[in-house]
Amino acid sequence: MSDAPVLIDTDVHNHIGSLTPYLPKAWHDRYRDVGLPYGAQYYSSIGTHRKDANPDRGGPPGSDPQFLISDHMDRYGVDYAILTGSGVLGLSLDPDPDYGNVLAAACNDRMVDTWLSVSPRFKGSIFVNASDPVAAAAEIRRHAANPDMVQVLMASAARMPYGQRFYHPIYDAAQECGLPVAVHPGTEGKGISGPPTPSGYPTRYMEWHNILPTNYMTHVNSLVCEGVFEKFPKLKFVAIEGGISWLPHLMWRMDKNYKALRESVPWLKRFPSEYIVDHIRLTTQPIEEPNMPEQFVQILHMISAEKTVMFSSDYPHWDNDNPRMTLPRMPKEMKKRILAGTAAELYGLHTKPARMNSTSTELAEKIAVESLNSPDHVWGEEE
Amino acid sequence: MSDAPVLIDTDVHNHIGSLTPYLPKAWHDRYRDVGLPYGAQYYSSIGTHRKDANPDRGGPPGSDPQFLISDHMDRYGVDYAILTGSGVLGLSLDPDPDYGNVLAAACNDRMVDTWLSVSPRFKGSIFVNASDPVAAAAEIRRHAANPDMVQVLMASAARMPYGQRFYHPIYDAAQECGLPVAVHPGTEGKGISGPPTPSGYPTRYMEWHNILPTNYMTHVNSLVCEGVFEKFPKLKFVAIEGGISWLPHLMWRMDKNYKALRESVPWLKRFPSEYIVDHIRLTTQPIEEPNMPEQFVQILHMISAEKTVMFSSDYPHWDNDNPRMTLPRMPKEMKKRILAGTAAELYGLHTKPARMNSTSTELAEKIAVESLNSPDHVWGEEE
Repeated sequence: MSDAPVLIDTDVHNHIGSLTPYLPKAWHDRYRDVGLPYGAQYYSSIGTHRKDANPDRGGPPGSDPQFLISDHMDRYGVDYAILTGSGVLGLSLDPDPDYGNVLAAACNDRMVDTWLSVSPRFKGSIFVNASDPVAAAAEIRRHAANPDMVQVLMASAARMPYGQRFYHPIYDAAQECGLPVAVHPGTEGKGISGPPTPSGYPTRYMEWHNILPTNYMTHVNSLVCEGVFEKFPKLKFVAIEGGISWLPHLMWRMDKNYKALRESVPWLKRFPSEYIVDHIRLTTQPIEEPNMPEQFVQILHMISAEKTVMFSSDYPHWDNDNPRMTLPRMPKEMKKRILAGTAAELYGLHTKPARMNSTSTELAEKIAVESLNSPDHVWGEEE
Repeated sequence: MSDAPVLIDTDVHNHIGSLTPYLPKAWHDRYRDVGLPYGAQYYSSIGTHRKDANPDRGGPPGSDPQFLISDHMDRYGVDYAILTGSGVLGLSLDPDPDYGNVLAAACNDRMVDTWLSVSPRFKGSIFVNASDPVAAAAEIRRHAANPDMVQVLMASAARMPYGQRFYHPIYDAAQECGLPVAVHPGTEGKGISGPPTPSGYPTRYMEWHNILPTNYMTHVNSLVCEGVFEKFPKLKFVAIEGGISWLPHLMWRMDKNYKALRESVPWLKRFPSEYIVDHIRLTTQPIEEPNMPEQFVQILHMISAEKTVMFSSDYPHWDNDNPRMTLPRMPKEMKKRILAGTAAELYGLHTKPARMNSTSTELAEKIAVESLNSPDHVWGEEE
């Protein structure tokens, strides 16, 4: 098994680039005027990208495939990067679902053509417009035959908790295609999503960022309580960049309430925490860093982290985690599972990619140059 | 110090009873038609009260002071009960702030006349209408001279996170009067508050109940980030019935983000977690019960529980915790602090009450009989 990958990065943000060539003509005017919805609602004066992740020859961070490989993947020995795009997720939050649908399709086509073709070390996410689940399901199936598209990805911001039956066509298609469904934060409070907290709008970027995981608790709770994992028993749900240490509380509270209230969820056959460990996957960044690192390891044991947690860097975002320094001392087997084992199983990446000769330098060059000339949209930012 | 209380219950729900005699005549019609806003939005088929907490001579649970003392306080050796009312908190969520204000005043007058007069073992909460902070501040000051009113209490459901400056008149008055400000859940999603999650409305009572603590995270985050504890350095904020085990995650995430984003909150002089340990108090019920109880004790150590956590039973609600069985094995000093020490300091209850002769049986009798004849309103239910 020495051929198995040792480091899979489950959240790497690639700049998607101009969508114009991928959009039907009818949408070109809107795309020129609006771009991808939505820009920053909460302003951070330090920005949302690492300043030192600017590619050497220019363009925004994450826009140059070769630089991304050398600056991040080769530097830290990342075998595979699961690409999650940049500024794309707001497409689920446009009032007009048709605009969201064409944007999703264009992003996916561009992902395939300009990123997945560059290197087998890049694996793609299928962006879907969660506000139109039937269209989202069709988009998932359109990519079913492409083994380099390894998950479905949608904004964590939503009008309804993700367990509700409105969304089930997405899970049906994902299960059919053998793909996990992932959510990514950063659009909370934007577009047609509601306020980012049960008590309305927080004030500043830091406060908003601190509290993003509450939306993840909302979705995990909903998915389990609504019986999604009984209806779609092979489905996995990936909670990208939503924190980790809140999970013991949610599991314990759900299990306790289940004991008293299980008659209201008769479709559940096991404790909520059992569905969570089997079906929910969390990514590490931004990892919690208590002053006593062993306290975080205690949390990892509480949630069976060897099954549930996967490494992510969030490169090239402002708070990205260094693969060499992120994980505290923990049992070796648990660390191996977090760094690669669980992701290898989830995404079907059982062997290392062929390293050399695997990057199409010509194509990478074309993408990098193009990104220098891409239109000057206000691009939405994820976290 | 053998005279110190050994068990203080920080969340006991007393039935407030009819407010008509305490309301100005102008509001009698509305009170007769509407009562206290709001009833159950999420229906639980097992109800929200313990069936075995019905008083022997009838009336709703928590309506008979003598039965409450014998059924709960004497049975478990509770020295003091901090009374938090029943079905009252929706008064903050009525669209009409004037109605909320008169209801709050009437509840408080009735609390003083009919409960605090019965026994020195009852200590009262000053209900305030958080939607009208200036009026709330006046209501707090109206009770400043009454040593039996030991805290300010408002709904955790709100239109804005509780750190925002709109609410500061409440904290100003509470600090001036030396009273902690407490929140209690159960009205999330009702009245003029927003949806109970960042992604809208959960489906059923269990799902809604599981996720209530996210609103507590919202408020604690907001109070700290907005600098409330720098502006009001003597203020304590009590998070009643909102869970405990989520706090490590929030503290760690806030501290990590503070390191990078502190320029956006220049009024903070310490790490967010330090404000939390000094100013936030949590109550135990519904206590989390992992299969391995020592995991919960690990959590207690992470949050300095000897300073931050206070015992509560939530009597007579459906999921109330038995004082004798709730707390797992933990260091003796920590347990003493949780059972009484921290609450004794917070509420100024430094000595045991005189037990015998302390209950006004005549008054208690009057209240119990009256509750049998109280109007048949749909009373809002807290959790």
